Amino acid sequence: MSFKNRDIISITDFSRKDLIELFKRTDLMLDYRKNRLNLLEGKILASAFFEPSTRTRLSFETAMKRLGGDVISFSGSEAISIAKGENLADTIRMLDSYANIIVIRHKYEGAAKLAAEIAECPVINGGDGKHHHPTQAMLDLYTIWKLFGKIDGLNYAIVGDLKYARTAASLVLGLIKFKPQKIYLISPPQLKMKPEIIDTIEKYGFEYEELNDFGDIISTIDVMYVTRIQKERFPDPMEYEKVKGSYNINLKLISKAKETLRILHPLPKIDEIDLAIDQTKFAAYFTQAAFGVPLRMALLSLIFGVKFP
Amino acid sequence: MSFKNRDIISITDFSRKDLIELFKRTDLMLDYRKNRLNLLEGKILASAFFEPSTRTRLSFETAMKRLGGDVISFSGSEAISIAKGENLADTIRMLDSYANIIVIRHKYEGAAKLAAEIAECPVINGGDGKHHHPTQAMLDLYTIWKLFGKIDGLNYAIVGDLKYARTAASLVLGLIKFKPQKIYLISPPQLKMKPEIIDTIEKYGFEYEELNDFGDIISTIDVMYVTRIQKERFPDPMEYEKVKGSYNINLKLISKAKETLRILHPLPKIDEIDLAIDQTKFAAYFTQAAFGVPLRMALLSLIFGVKFP
Amino acid sequence: MSFKNRDIISITDFSRKDLIELFKRTDLMLDYRKNRLNLLEGKILASAFFEPSTRTRLSFETAMKRLGGDVISFSGSEAISIAKGENLADTIRMLDSYANIIVIRHKYEGAAKLAAEIAECPVINGGDGKHHHPTQAMLDLYTIWKLFGKIDGLNYAIVGDLKYARTAASLVLGLIKFKPQKIYLISPPQLKMKPEIIDTIEKYGFEYEELNDFGDIISTIDVMYVTRIQKERFPDPMEYEKVKGSYNINLKLISKAKETLRILHPLPKIDEIDLAIDQTKFAAYFTQAAFGVPLRMALLSLIFGVKFP
Repeated sequence: MSFKNRDIISITDFSRKDLIELFKRTDLMLDYRKNRLNLLEGKILASAFFEPSTRTRLSFETAMKRLGGDVISFSGSEAISIAKGENLADTIRMLDSYANIIVIRHKYEGAAKLAAEIAECPVINGGDGKHHHPTQAMLDLYTIWKLFGKIDGLNYAIVGDLKYARTAASLVLGLIKFKPQKIYLISPPQLKMKPEIIDTIEKYGFEYEELNDFGDIISTIDVMYVTRIQKERFPDPMEYEKVKGSYNINLKLISKAKETLRILHPLPKIDEIDLAIDQTKFAAYFTQAAFGVPLRMALLSLIFGVKFP
Repeated sequence: MSFKNRDIISITDFSRKDLIELFKRTDLMLDYRKNRLNLLEGKILASAFFEPSTRTRLSFETAMKRLGGDVISFSGSEAISIAKGENLADTIRMLDSYANIIVIRHKYEGAAKLAAEIAECPVINGGDGKHHHPTQAMLDLYTIWKLFGKIDGLNYAIVGDLKYARTAASLVLGLIKFKPQKIYLISPPQLKMKPEIIDTIEKYGFEYEELNDFGDIISTIDVMYVTRIQKERFPDPMEYEKVKGSYNINLKLISKAKETLRILHPLPKIDEIDLAIDQTKFAAYFTQAAFGVPLRMALLSLIFGVKFP
Repeated sequence: MSFKNRDIISITDFSRKDLIELFKRTDLMLDYRKNRLNLLEGKILASAFFEPSTRTRLSFETAMKRLGGDVISFSGSEAISIAKGENLADTIRMLDSYANIIVIRHKYEGAAKLAAEIAECPVINGGDGKHHHPTQAMLDLYTIWKLFGKIDGLNYAIVGDLKYARTAASLVLGLIKFKPQKIYLISPPQLKMKPEIIDTIEKYGFEYEELNDFGDIISTIDVMYVTRIQKERFPDPMEYEKVKGSYNINLKLISKAKETLRILHPLPKIDEIDLAIDQTKFAAYFTQAAFGVPLRMALLSLIFGVKFP
């Protein structure tokens, strides 16, 4: 199944072969990420952000404009009042009649899937509740593929809030398309990875381990994927203060790591990674973020079925 | 009087001949509503929404972009702070010096007219208070013209809040440019059509009737135009609960209608039309909404005096 | 030092020669301010307004679009939530990886300078706290140059809130690149010009005078530059009511002025200039505002190193 006219709802819908095709197209886009490439002239992307996400929104809008297309959008307080004022189906019908493709972010799980069922034009899930964030997972996997030349055979530590962070779940669901050597899931007990994701890991027979802190595994990790732990998730703030330290990535922790360790983060980051890390070779999150536009350029050009070069 | 460089303030400013010219141009735009047509390259539309209206705003912005033009805009909280921070005339002068055409929505009646007096570039009224919404009326009339091949000789039921809904008033003022057979105005007594609109209907000698509910007229109607009845309009919520049912368009009511009845609605709709109606042949409101972009493409191209084809 | 790839942080960074180059380029842009000039096709400007400023934001966005470029942006409540959610450096890194140039407005003094240190692409200061607003000063100086054919040898009165209005400070710092005959600084005692600006005037040896009201100097002034006096700046509202009148520019005051006096204002204006003045030949602020787009077109085209004509 090719990308042409396809809805992008969950990373699980894509095969290893699909993803490699996307990565190779992304490679071709790297030269154009600051220039115009008129592949989608006359096409309009509707950017429907019912929940804020500046990074995802702007990277899609930039990608569309780099490809010669244009954008209509709503976000912020306008999106909230739309969500109150009518049912989602009617809003999607409107966007479907105006635009050539829709990107939707919504707090309800399944919102993107519903939108895809209603709309004739392709729908891209820009994040639905705690559920999926497929283009972030594509970006994460591409970054690893680009940094290491492979995704197979590496040791992964996914760190932070694994319960609510859809990026962490989406990454795991993406990794199982490949052959990771081992996946460490490091989180406070309250924020452990959802059972259905664990079930999937086990079903595919991958080696994994759930931990409360790094312990002594730091020296074995190739890719560290960090997500925010939000204080608000903890019923008791004291509880948060206790665990907080275990997930602060700092120079001391990193001093025990492989030279080749690379740290990813979907951003924005708050204080889970010390600013001192930013300047080290370990920090790959800014590179990862910079791949956001070329990856989405690649994805959009594939969905519109445009040949390139 | 042609459309060229003309302000679009009220539907009453346009003759039957004008409207037919607009409808024919809209027909030509239908093929381009998902593609680019470079008629307005280098032109910029200023989208000044002091009141939110995603549908109107996005349809204008999409239309401008489909025609190869571009858009600058403000809306939401930014619009509110502009409105507080300076007089409307100064804001309009700014937009007039930046853009080639201005679309304004504002809560004050007469705001668009004031803007048109100040600005050298054409001004389009995107809705002013309870007053006018001329491009919605144009869209409504075009939809009827397209569905029935005519506007003359049909029976109309305009239903809901006829007092505050500017779309209902604007439609009536548009209909009197044609020869409707009969206009039923169906609303709770508190939300009856404004006297000045009734006076206009009488002045033009059209047959009309004001009703509190459908009674047995449902079988005679060709076009049903439904607007929202907002609970907030009622001084007493009990009062609302009582009347509410009379204006719920459902399968039972429709079962007594002509096969050729078509239901229009300016959208967004809340619960005044049962979702079950959406799937029937009677529902024309999504088609109507989808005409929003080509109609506004036609209007913009006429105002800029562009010949087409 | 040419404009090419240069950050625009403070008016003090630019020489008289630089400014004259900018003014001449602006002259060339006047013919294109309502048309498209494809000098920056494929370039994207990131418009990052952490503080609202519709006029500055829209004039930059219009300028970029007139030059054939495009824009990504955030503002309003979205900007506030970004500012809360991550450090400014990370936000700037994101924009730097997406766009070709960044315009930033921020309430913290030095925010634009910090952004310029982080970003590889050029950064334009759209206003930082009470600090600088260099493109407004460029616009003010261009307007004077255009109206009088020179900036040297004129008498200036800068009126209003000189303490907090960054436009007043930026204008003085711009004027000292030229040879003003005399600068009158007219403000309530609480809102006198900041000492460091006074020091700079003295260092350059310009004649100046600080006054509480116009007294009898009105007849000697060539350029009157008015800024808003905001009631909120006064600890005691009674205090405000007392001084308020001294800074109301009205026909009576102007009746004693030279025929050639011209009044500038960065806008938006509230009530510091009587509406009756708007219609007189003295009012130059709408002309000044209309120069905002061509001046920023000139600046952007110079920063991107585009030859023109």
